[in-house]
Amino acid sequence: MRAVVFRQGDLVVENLAEPKPGSGLVLVRTLACGICGSDLHARDHASRMEGISKFVPWRKPLDPTRDVVMGHEFACEILDYGAGASKKIRVGAPVVSVPWIVREGAVQGIGFSNENTGGYAERMLLSEGNLLEVPNGLPAEQAALTEPLAVGIHAVEKARVSGDEVPLVVGCGPIGLAVVATLRAKKLHPIVAADFSPKRRELALLMGADVVVDPATVSPYKTWQEYAAMPPADSQKRAPLLGMPRPSKPALIFECVGVPGVINSIFEGAPRHARVIVVGVCMENDLAKPLLGILKELSVQYVFGFTKEEFASGLRMLAEGEVNAKEMVSGKVGLDEIGAAFADLANPERHTKILVEPWR
Amino acid sequence: MRAVVFRQGDLVVENLAEPKPGSGLVLVRTLACGICGSDLHARDHASRMEGISKFVPWRKPLDPTRDVVMGHEFACEILDYGAGASKKIRVGAPVVSVPWIVREGAVQGIGFSNENTGGYAERMLLSEGNLLEVPNGLPAEQAALTEPLAVGIHAVEKARVSGDEVPLVVGCGPIGLAVVATLRAKKLHPIVAADFSPKRRELALLMGADVVVDPATVSPYKTWQEYAAMPPADSQKRAPLLGMPRPSKPALIFECVGVPGVINSIFEGAPRHARVIVVGVCMENDLAKPLLGILKELSVQYVFGFTKEEFASGLRMLAEGEVNAKEMVSGKVGLDEIGAAFADLANPERHTKILVEPWR
Repeated sequence: MRAVVFRQGDLVVENLAEPKPGSGLVLVRTLACGICGSDLHARDHASRMEGISKFVPWRKPLDPTRDVVMGHEFACEILDYGAGASKKIRVGAPVVSVPWIVREGAVQGIGFSNENTGGYAERMLLSEGNLLEVPNGLPAEQAALTEPLAVGIHAVEKARVSGDEVPLVVGCGPIGLAVVATLRAKKLHPIVAADFSPKRRELALLMGADVVVDPATVSPYKTWQEYAAMPPADSQKRAPLLGMPRPSKPALIFECVGVPGVINSIFEGAPRHARVIVVGVCMENDLAKPLLGILKELSVQYVFGFTKEEFASGLRMLAEGEVNAKEMVSGKVGLDEIGAAFADLANPERHTKILVEPWR
Repeated sequence: MRAVVFRQGDLVVENLAEPKPGSGLVLVRTLACGICGSDLHARDHASRMEGISKFVPWRKPLDPTRDVVMGHEFACEILDYGAGASKKIRVGAPVVSVPWIVREGAVQGIGFSNENTGGYAERMLLSEGNLLEVPNGLPAEQAALTEPLAVGIHAVEKARVSGDEVPLVVGCGPIGLAVVATLRAKKLHPIVAADFSPKRRELALLMGADVVVDPATVSPYKTWQEYAAMPPADSQKRAPLLGMPRPSKPALIFECVGVPGVINSIFEGAPRHARVIVVGVCMENDLAKPLLGILKELSVQYVFGFTKEEFASGLRMLAEGEVNAKEMVSGKVGLDEIGAAFADLANPERHTKILVEPWR
């Protein structure tokens, strides 16, 4: 079968051996697979993971000197079941799955693994226990967005919103948009979202943001303050020490950029007692000024991945039309065009999410 | 009156004008005042605050080019009340106060202020509304520990313990010891504490730690793991994904060192989902590896200061003998010896808390 192999920093179209479903596994045909920012990060920073992996021994690090078939945001069609399957979903049905697999008694990743082929391939193997049938005739190109949406759902879950926070979403790429969509589904308004790109600010509004800010012209924190300020009556009730800033509703800031310097800029701009949820995956070393966090008594929750339940919620939200998912897909390519698509994704005006359709 | 003035990086004994209590203020005689690690930090890094202060506009920055009389951990005796006082506490009574004052309609600091004289002076002014009478004949040298104890109480309050966490206290200087004492008062056991200094490990045991670790010979995180591991039966119930680490009770790690590199070393050593409470005040820029926080889904709560209620709890704990405070005081000096005491505090074997007694 045809697949795109990440090999020593290059993306190469190859013919690989057909995968055979062992016990508990399912052979599927890849219908659509999103290109994720993490794929681009992994290409640029895979070797950096080696320095980190000794501190996270439960995660088998990617060996960047060996081949990898990336792709962890996929929608597929069932082709064949391995031995001992319960076959609750019929062959030919459209499915999605969390991007991990149970194999040799351990959980292994899909898409960031030297062992398991990801969605940049015509066919792949999944665990039967992880399959979810795609309902309501949701097209594969939208079902493939379940994974990035689940990342946003998980981030908002970990934020444990009480309902009176005013959220600020910093960065409106696919993950920032997923956070906006989840916050909207939770009815946490007003949602303030910031991005330098006009196209992405437009998308943030389509996904449910109430206010969008261009940080090049207006401080997102100033705009946030306008929307979060307590009404005068409440201000009186909660009056803090003299000389302290005007009372505001609690700040809940989502970092959805993942490049060095962004967390520090949030520490600089955040109001006192803000809660920061770090969703963007910054793989490089970064500058920290702990004193800012201390004087403002900030809290930071780093988040990663999602649970199977959160993934299922993502599929349900998409299938029930709760998310304006169609707007997020900005392009579709075949396997031969993945290299060009990686380059195109650098332009936020042109692209949000490019889907790979390996059957093209 | 005599006072020690911090002037252009030096500590100088000076004769200052007698303070006069205006409306709402009280003139007190300083009985004892602790030298705090923050005083040493301020001496070394005061100029750094200027770069930070624009992001915390509600805190008036210290001007290091102007005189400062430090000292914010004080026990005093009431000498005289200003106009309009309610005089609920008799003249001559021993008192403590939070280190801030209401003046000219605003809250101003004491001890890190160019305006308000701290406890390195024979006499000082306090706000009447902040006074707490020292009960039970608690000696002034122990009452002066109310402030650092309140920092530990505040840190543990902000940690919102649920009761099933296993705490690890990193650094057993006065603040780490205050955290240990508060955790012990909350009956959160076992308490694991780490410090390179044998003397400070001994003090940690006296203050209530159950296990102490020398990080030079044993990993505090490994020791923590031994004490936090779930019993086999519970492990089964909570069994996580295959390949994941053995289930443990939740980790609650208190950073009580406050020098660059410590937060990163905690990120390296911490187990998944650990909660980190940053109590140490690192005033310098620091290295961060966000990816470690992300892959482990760590959370970080930065804390600072305390409330009046937490300060009052500290005094109550001391007065009721709940804290082995006597052990913490390792030396007493007069005003002339403060410079030498600052130097002596660099040796953790010799000193934990040195008290200034300006009347000596």
